[in-house]
This record gives sequence, C-alpha cells and structure tokens, in this order.
Amino acid sequence: MQAVFFEGNRTFRVGESVAVEPGAGQVQIRVSFCGICGTDLHLFHGAMAHRLTLPHVMGHEMSGTIASVGSGVADWRAGDRVTVRPLDPCGHCPACVAGHSHICHNLKFIGIDTPGALQGIWTVPAHTLHRLPDSLSLREGAMVEPVAVACHDVRMSDLKQGEFAAVIGGGPIGILVALVAQARGARVVLAEVNQFRVELARDLGLDAVNPLETDLPQLVSDRTGGAGADVVFEVSGSQAGADTMTKLPRTRGRIVVVAIYAEPPKVDLFRFFWRELKLSGARVYEAEDFELAIELAATGRLPLARLITDVLPLNRLEDAMHRMEGGGDCMKILVSCTD
Amino acid sequence: MQAVFFEGNRTFRVGESVAVEPGAGQVQIRVSFCGICGTDLHLFHGAMAHRLTLPHVMGHEMSGTIASVGSGVADWRAGDRVTVRPLDPCGHCPACVAGHSHICHNLKFIGIDTPGALQGIWTVPAHTLHRLPDSLSLREGAMVEPVAVACHDVRMSDLKQGEFAAVIGGGPIGILVALVAQARGARVVLAEVNQFRVELARDLGLDAVNPLETDLPQLVSDRTGGAGADVVFEVSGSQAGADTMTKLPRTRGRIVVVAIYAEPPKVDLFRFFWRELKLSGARVYEAEDFELAIELAATGRLPLARLITDVLPLNRLEDAMHRMEGGGDCMKILVSCTD
Repeated sequence: MQAVFFEGNRTFRVGESVAVEPGAGQVQIRVSFCGICGTDLHLFHGAMAHRLTLPHVMGHEMSGTIASVGSGVADWRAGDRVTVRPLDPCGHCPACVAGHSHICHNLKFIGIDTPGALQGIWTVPAHTLHRLPDSLSLREGAMVEPVAVACHDVRMSDLKQGEFAAVIGGGPIGILVALVAQARGARVVLAEVNQFRVELARDLGLDAVNPLETDLPQLVSDRTGGAGADVVFEVSGSQAGADTMTKLPRTRGRIVVVAIYAEPPKVDLFRFFWRELKLSGARVYEAEDFELAIELAATGRLPLARLITDVLPLNRLEDAMHRMEGGGDCMKILVSCTD
Repeated sequence: MQAVFFEGNRTFRVGESVAVEPGAGQVQIRVSFCGICGTDLHLFHGAMAHRLTLPHVMGHEMSGTIASVGSGVADWRAGDRVTVRPLDPCGHCPACVAGHSHICHNLKFIGIDTPGALQGIWTVPAHTLHRLPDSLSLREGAMVEPVAVACHDVRMSDLKQGEFAAVIGGGPIGILVALVAQARGARVVLAEVNQFRVELARDLGLDAVNPLETDLPQLVSDRTGGAGADVVFEVSGSQAGADTMTKLPRTRGRIVVVAIYAEPPKVDLFRFFWRELKLSGARVYEAEDFELAIELAATGRLPLARLITDVLPLNRLEDAMHRMEGGGDCMKILVSCTD
C-alpha cells in the first residue's frame, strides 16, 4: 500500500506505506478516506516544522476499517468501521488532571506530532477510536473530525434553541459550525467574503452574506430587534474578523474564537467592558463532541456529501494542496487512501 | 451650601449649590463625602465632553443623609444615611428587557450624564439609594461605590474559595478587587509597577509584586503547580496588561477585563484557542453588588480607611485632581462636601 511522505520544502514523495504492527493497546487500520485540513496546508507551507519528523505522513480526518488489534484491546476487532479522534494526551499534566485532556500541556496531535492517515495502513492507540455506524458512508465518515470541531465550538458557546448566532468565516469549519448551530435550533447568519463559498452555503440552506456587500452589524441588529447576536463564532482568523466579532453581540453576548491567529490582532476590549461581552477559545474536541458529530452525520441532518468538492487518489495530494491554496472554488478535498 | 462647577478646559469654579426640590420618586440628599474617581480625572482632562452639560458638577462615590423626600417615596425618610448607585437605566431597551439594566443601551450615569455629588445638596431618584448601616462611618460609606465595582468584578469572574487569582494593576479598583477576592477565600497576587502602591498593598495584607522586577507568569506557575491562575483581573488598561493577562491563566482559566481601554490593544487570541481561555468584560455593578459591598464594609473586613489618602474641602478639588495626575503617592482622595 501507498503513503505520501512530506519531505519539507513543499515536496511530497509517494512511497510504500510502512505497516506498523499494533502494539499493546493499539490497532492497525486500513484507511479508506482522509480529508485535507487547513492545518495540513499550513504544514505544507512550512508551519510547525519543529513538530515534524521528516519524512512525515500528514492526515487526521479519516475513516477506515480495523485490520488487526494489539494485545489488551478488548472492545475492537478486525472489520470494525472507525474514525480516529487524533489526540494523545499525557494524562498527568495540570490540564489532564483538571479533566481537560484535549488541551493537555503535552498533547501529541496524531498526524502532526506522530505519523498521520494519508497512507493505506495506519496504527494508532485504541483509545482514539470512534465507531462509524453502518448508515454512514466511509466518505462521510472522513468528515466526522471537522464536524466534531464544529460540535465542540457550538457546545463551548452554550448556544440555546432559538438564539441568534453569527458565524464569521465560511470555510469548511465555519460552514459546519453554522450547520451544527442550525441543527441545534439556532437562527444563524454566516458571513463570508468568497462568493463561491457564499453560494455553496446558500445551497446548503444557510443564510449567508458577503460582509463586503452587506452591513453585517446592521443586519444582525435588525434581525434581533436591536439587541445583537447571542453568540458570535470568529472562524476567519483575520483582523477584519476580530474587528467585527465585538460589533455583533448583545449585552453579555458570547464570542467563540475558533480561528487560529498567527499574530495577535487588535481587539476592542472597551466593547467587552461596555457590553459585558464574553469570549471563549475553543480547541479541537472531546469524546462527546465526536459522539454527537457521528450522531448528527448518521441521521443525515448535515449535508456532508455536498461539502466534498473532490476525491483524489493519494498520488495527487500535491495537486490537492495547490487547489486549496487557490481558495476559490474549493471546500473539502478527500484523498482515497486504498485505491 | 457649595458646589464645584467644572467649566471645561481643566477649570473648576466654586459656587452656590443649586438645591433641586425632590420631585415624584426623588430624594434630596445632604452630601457628606464624595470620592474622586479616575473617571472624574478623565472628565477633567476633557474626556467624554459630549456627555457633559457645562458647567457640570462631577462626583458619584458618595455618602450622605437624606434631607427630604418627594412624593411617592415610601421607603425613605429625612435623616436616613445613604449612598447612591448612580445608574439611571431606560427600562425598555433590549439590555433592560434582558435584565441587564446596569448596562442599559441608553444608560444615564449620574454624575456624568446628570449633575453629580460634589456639592452640598443633591437630588437623585430614590431607586438609586442604598442604606448605610450605623456601624459604617460616612467616610467609609463614600467608598462603597468602588467596593461595589470590585464586588461586581469578582462576581463576574465566578471566583471560588481556594482558587488562585492574579490582579494586574494596583490602583484603587485593583486593590479593592484583590481585597474582595481575598475576602471571598481566594489566594491572590497583585501586580503593580508603582512602588508606593505595591507597599500600600502589602501593608493591607496583600501579596503584591512589581512585574518589572518579578517574572509574574513564572511566579503564578510556581504558586499553582504549573497549572496557572484560575482567574486574572486586568485592571491596568495598558498594552503590557493585555499582554500579561493571557500568559497567566490555567486551561479554561477566566480573565475579567475591568480596565477601560482608550484604544484596542493587541490580544493574543491564539492563547485563547490554545488553552480555551475565557474572557468577560465587567462594567459598574448591580444592586446585589452594592448590598455585598455594604456588608463587607460594615463588617470591617476591608481596610477602607487606609485607602483614603486624604480628605479635602470642596474648594480644593482642583488640587486633588493635580495630586491624582501625579499618580505617585496617592490612592483615594475624598472631598468633604458640607464642611
């Protein structure tokens, strides 16, 4: 079976996948599909190079079937359809002790700090597994990880049915946050500057606007009787997003920072004081977010198949990266790992 | 009786206080003492000029005795010792309807948007009154308003007994936040760059450090077993404070922004993502904060008298402003309004 090895300097090499026998507490998976995350694109561009051991296999949004299990693995067997929650916490740092193991001080993110899923055969700790129901295709199964991100973001916002939420940024995560928020009974507006994404979001049943054309604070005010949004999700990672996020919420409204900022933006802390706004950061997911993501995906309430722009073979990973770089007319690209 | 009229351009004029007869729902108060707030100093420097009707009487941190009551005022009578919660909300905006009338969209702050307490006789709505117990001196009674700010800040932080709190900024509000947090059972460290204030804080029983001399993030890490602070109060309003506030909290730790920022500072939103930090703005107070402030003050658990640097007569208000401008060796200055 094949693997794609990142060799640094924006270069991939296709080679033979190194089949690692599953040790105690591990499982070996035949990988079906693996989505390409914005983080993978950042790795391709040279980010987080200090965390990679080259040549590195990327990939952490996957689906597959268990090939074999190591000793001490009682709950899983060959043939089980699974996805992986790619977090390996240390278990003893203050964050783990406090019950926040998903943001462990020494967290290993599988697919960055250890080899990832862009290969035909992959070995991971059994504690990372979640079962995929038969009703969920393996293509959609590869979308569970980003859906779990969205479920975590929405959970962290404490969003309630009937509340008004604004989502700033309509890439894969922003659209999924909007879809999950809507599935949870919120009224949602999504703001995105890329017209392809605006139109795709509208096709998916979202109320999407381009904030370069629409006065977003005014729209949110109008929709909420002058009160402002209950929740704002900042998913753009831009200064414009940071500027906008404080203009939208009601008094004591909640902002969730989902985006990863490369540099600290200016933030209107006066507005936090004036309206007693609240802000939370939200990072990855916990087990319950994966469970909810699988449930939402399996019941067909999220149009996941329509977010998949293309499915490419492993040896076209570099092409996929270039398409994602373009931004334009691309949402989620999956890689078929066992073709 | 006298009043001090602000005429703009850093100029005060001492004149006769205009005794306003209390209308329906109002009371007329003989003002005993009025503290000078940092906000008053900002007004003196020309800030918020659009909100003032010149000549303007400042002052909102006061104690006094009711002189007479208007029609329909059943709960109060002449001779009652009181302080005023200087907020006059509209009652019908989305914030008021949501129960957040202290941050009403159309809030009138008494002493800024309407005449204040730096005069011998003052008329205000009866709904603003809180009763001062006999055990509380009128000097300490004039400290209730800033104590209520601190009570609100601590309440908004959801601080629990035994938690570790860091307070950035040791002016009157920062020191009161630290004292109230300590009275609520928290372990507290206060960071302040002014050595007079550091030493005063230490005299008051606080653990105070100068962050120019002490590595504050390291100290907080050491004191918390590497976890970080449960709560951080940012009371400095400086870029250095905004930089520090994100370095101190534990995973899911809470930051409360108390300071009023004139300009948006840079804020490390990546750190919010990485540690799932939470931030809340906190503005003024609600009735329950005044009640707790009076209770804490009356039981003598806060060394309020020692925060009063000086008590000056009304006609020396301008001197008081200049002393506060100097920053140096000054904490709270009270003005005696009926000498």
